[in-house]
Amino acid sequence: MNRGTLLLLPVSLSAASWVEWLPAHVRDIACSINYFIVENAKCARAEIARLGHPQPIRNLSLSELPSAPTSADCDRLLAPVFSGHDVALMSDAGCPAVADPGALLVRRCHETGIRVRPLIGPSSLMLGLMASGLEGQRFSFHGYLPARDPERAIKIVALDKESARVSQTQLFIETPYRNQALFKALLDHCQPKTRLCLASDLTAPTESVMTHRISEWRGMPTPQLDKRPTVFLMLADSRN
Amino acid sequence: MNRGTLLLLPVSLSAASWVEWLPAHVRDIACSINYFIVENAKCARAEIARLGHPQPIRNLSLSELPSAPTSADCDRLLAPVFSGHDVALMSDAGCPAVADPGALLVRRCHETGIRVRPLIGPSSLMLGLMASGLEGQRFSFHGYLPARDPERAIKIVALDKESARVSQTQLFIETPYRNQALFKALLDHCQPKTRLCLASDLTAPTESVMTHRISEWRGMPTPQLDKRPTVFLMLADSRN
Repeated sequence: MNRGTLLLLPVSLSAASWVEWLPAHVRDIACSINYFIVENAKCARAEIARLGHPQPIRNLSLSELPSAPTSADCDRLLAPVFSGHDVALMSDAGCPAVADPGALLVRRCHETGIRVRPLIGPSSLMLGLMASGLEGQRFSFHGYLPARDPERAIKIVALDKESARVSQTQLFIETPYRNQALFKALLDHCQPKTRLCLASDLTAPTESVMTHRISEWRGMPTPQLDKRPTVFLMLADSRN
Repeated sequence: MNRGTLLLLPVSLSAASWVEWLPAHVRDIACSINYFIVENAKCARAEIARLGHPQPIRNLSLSELPSAPTSADCDRLLAPVFSGHDVALMSDAGCPAVADPGALLVRRCHETGIRVRPLIGPSSLMLGLMASGLEGQRFSFHGYLPARDPERAIKIVALDKESARVSQTQLFIETPYRNQALFKALLDHCQPKTRLCLASDLTAPTESVMTHRISEWRGMPTPQLDKRPTVFLMLADSRN
């Protein structure tokens, strides 16, 4: 029997209609799928309904991905693929398996010879990087920084130094309710000439992308970041 | 007078129709623009025609971006924005300003208070990373590696070591006619347990994404990479 394909389906970053953020062809593919592996079933149901899937949601198979799936978990989730069905992997927002769960499931596909097909859609990291005006030839994503000092301060200083050394943009994210504290820590611990970009609410009507040097940010009113999903990007000036 | 916005417009990675790779809303925005700043005018004209822009191409303003634009170059290119027009920035493929020119123009927008708006479309780096099954919580893009040994071998060994140390996926690209030589160098210089992903011809009918350990690649027939745009991704095994 022919095996199916694991499709990697990006999900909206905002409340907009799918025509704003998904190619029509990708939406057609999503609407032809009956098996979904998802980060969170409630989010996924809302998203699938928003795409206008022709099947009633109760007729679809939705399986939640464990946070650290074993090979046996993966094989169980991939059973429909082994028996010939295409299956779509979705996270709660943006691209699955990038700053989100899913990579171990994809890895298992490579180990077992299942085809993986990435689909085009929104990525907050890529949108933030494009719009930041920072170095796009060399960049590094670090996930979440340590939540508390002194670990956080030490990490910020190290990222700033490394950015200056190799002329590399550093990207990271934070739980939205801690954005304001991270912003303050960046003002406290980065070199004055380092450029910091805050890319918030990407693709939403309230989207804002602002890049200034740390010395400039220090003299400006504090931006309102609380509860706004934000990508932080920084590039040190090599002449620091 | 109100200023315009700099729109960052991604471009196809393959010969497919826009419905396959661009959200309809983004295509509508692109078709409403009369001013374009582009990496290469010939490529851009073909792309704009393919989007079905309602204006004859000769009526549109297309300006090529210098490879290292000065502030004065940027201000000249951005003149339509200062006088109230929206302008779209396009590279030859994928996302502008990421592994492609454009970041200095975007930076100049931030310096002069011009709004920048990133649009959703294909990014070979993001598609390759999603489909690789490698670490998506920490990753680093390095552009092109040195073209010749010993510099190339030294860089590969350093990337492999750093990947093991911080559990970070390393991404890089090569001029397509040198892909085969880079692949051979990776087999020669990476640890046997390191996972290497080759993501070629992304979004095209000939797309392939393959991830294996170096020791496995060494025992397999050499993949045909010549003239195929390929993203290379590697993740060292921390138990090396």
